[in-house]
Amino acid sequence: MNPKQRIQLSRLLTRLDRLDPSESLPKPEHARPVGSAFRIGITGPLGAGKSTLINKIAREYRKLEMSVGIIAVDPSSPFTGGALLGDRVRMHDLTLDDGIFIRSLATRGASGGLTFSAIDAADLIDSFGFDRIIIETVGVGQSEVDIVGACDATVVVFEPGSGDGIQVMKAGLMEIADLFVVNKMDLKGTDRFLTELETILEMKDHDRPDVLTTSANLGDGISELMDWLEDYFKRSMNDGSLENRRAGQRIDRIKRSVELIVARKLWQVISPATLDKVVNSDMPVRKAAHQLIEQFFSGKTDR
Amino acid sequence: MNPKQRIQLSRLLTRLDRLDPSESLPKPEHARPVGSAFRIGITGPLGAGKSTLINKIAREYRKLEMSVGIIAVDPSSPFTGGALLGDRVRMHDLTLDDGIFIRSLATRGASGGLTFSAIDAADLIDSFGFDRIIIETVGVGQSEVDIVGACDATVVVFEPGSGDGIQVMKAGLMEIADLFVVNKMDLKGTDRFLTELETILEMKDHDRPDVLTTSANLGDGISELMDWLEDYFKRSMNDGSLENRRAGQRIDRIKRSVELIVARKLWQVISPATLDKVVNSDMPVRKAAHQLIEQFFSGKTDR
Repeated sequence: MNPKQRIQLSRLLTRLDRLDPSESLPKPEHARPVGSAFRIGITGPLGAGKSTLINKIAREYRKLEMSVGIIAVDPSSPFTGGALLGDRVRMHDLTLDDGIFIRSLATRGASGGLTFSAIDAADLIDSFGFDRIIIETVGVGQSEVDIVGACDATVVVFEPGSGDGIQVMKAGLMEIADLFVVNKMDLKGTDRFLTELETILEMKDHDRPDVLTTSANLGDGISELMDWLEDYFKRSMNDGSLENRRAGQRIDRIKRSVELIVARKLWQVISPATLDKVVNSDMPVRKAAHQLIEQFFSGKTDR
Repeated sequence: MNPKQRIQLSRLLTRLDRLDPSESLPKPEHARPVGSAFRIGITGPLGAGKSTLINKIAREYRKLEMSVGIIAVDPSSPFTGGALLGDRVRMHDLTLDDGIFIRSLATRGASGGLTFSAIDAADLIDSFGFDRIIIETVGVGQSEVDIVGACDATVVVFEPGSGDGIQVMKAGLMEIADLFVVNKMDLKGTDRFLTELETILEMKDHDRPDVLTTSANLGDGISELMDWLEDYFKRSMNDGSLENRRAGQRIDRIKRSVELIVARKLWQVISPATLDKVVNSDMPVRKAAHQLIEQFFSGKTDR
């Protein structure tokens, strides 16, 4: 990607950030059809080493001469400038690479629309011809889980040291993971963690996600992880599961888009005066809501 | 609270769980007006010791002969049955106390509506005459942050050991915290953590939240925390800030309620056949959304 394209992509992403949900996505010149890039969603609790892992994955793809777009939705990620100095320095040489594009998305204020923005951003980066797109989120909130669930492969990263790893799985990560990565395998407690993980995975009756161990810091297990990813993409292309998965994701996106546009319309149609009146009454919340909705629909019918 | 009331409250909360957002809240017999209980929102990263802290706070309130309702939105909380055996045993004697009521809310599938349900549940528990209501969430996702932000006092709990604490603050916790509790103060790294925390707090120009240190496990700092809470409630009652805060929360709830009800209506009016047609076309997502919205409004006008 040349500097001119980089600037164009950055600008389009900025326009995207400010886009009303009812407006159309900005279209780059000479855009490639969306859907050519494989998308890897990486999530997991704070401190699991997601960013270091992503750093390593991106470097491996570069060795394979593939270009990589990185979207960091995690506000604590070094990619978003949220980390301590050490991490930021480590990221530095990635940002100097022409085949790497990094974008961070704020989670603040984007409630509900965050998943939408992250996937839109991935589409835009995709259309610029990147081979792989990595989306990083902290895997606890619902929208963070939704985002990585909207990728082609969903990787959940854990650190064995904390007893919390297993508990996080209850947060819905279990259901969306295609692969569990137990990072920091050099730390003590890894064996015990793996045993606990196996126990929990065996209790579930649906498709068992794979489990790999890595030490992103030391570089251990990275080539196995790369093999897993590329093999997974090949398999899911060949057996049609990628196509099915993307079709399901399209339904979700369309529905979410409809809801966002209508929600936006609501507060354009309902007058601030009406809202004030209802808020300052002693009506219960749901009754107040119904009054406003009535005004919305009668307002609409008038037009 | 006698066993009969306990059963009644449990049943009403179950009805609430299944309630369509457009329906009215179930009303208990002899209900007290909502708003009498003080609500404490407690959030923070996994492993910070939130549940142990809540356990201690609840016990202290019991010593003061106050009744406590606990709502756990954190899927990894021992209150929701999500924790390892040790934690569950520790919670056991709380659940045998007549003056304690514990309810867990699942985060799965409740995307968007979760904040709504948690606050509705708090209202219902409030109407049964509880003195204090504690809501626990994992403070990373947007809705988790929203929930504790909808309480009368918002407490953010950190563990000094992990370097991540400071980073979590970027997730919007900084803005909503009335109090930071640095728990596990017996761990090494507390001094350094406190220094970092002070540095960050000084950079912010808005109201500085207070900072306390505790060791929930050892019981240290709990009485100071109780004093802070009760003093905070007294102050915010007297200076009108509680009333202002609750008025703002009412606006948010009414708006969210409107959006939820309309979103529900959308998928009742838009026929599955239309959705299918649009999904299976090669229209871009936003264009597809606009087609569905058109059908929604024309469908509405016909009625």
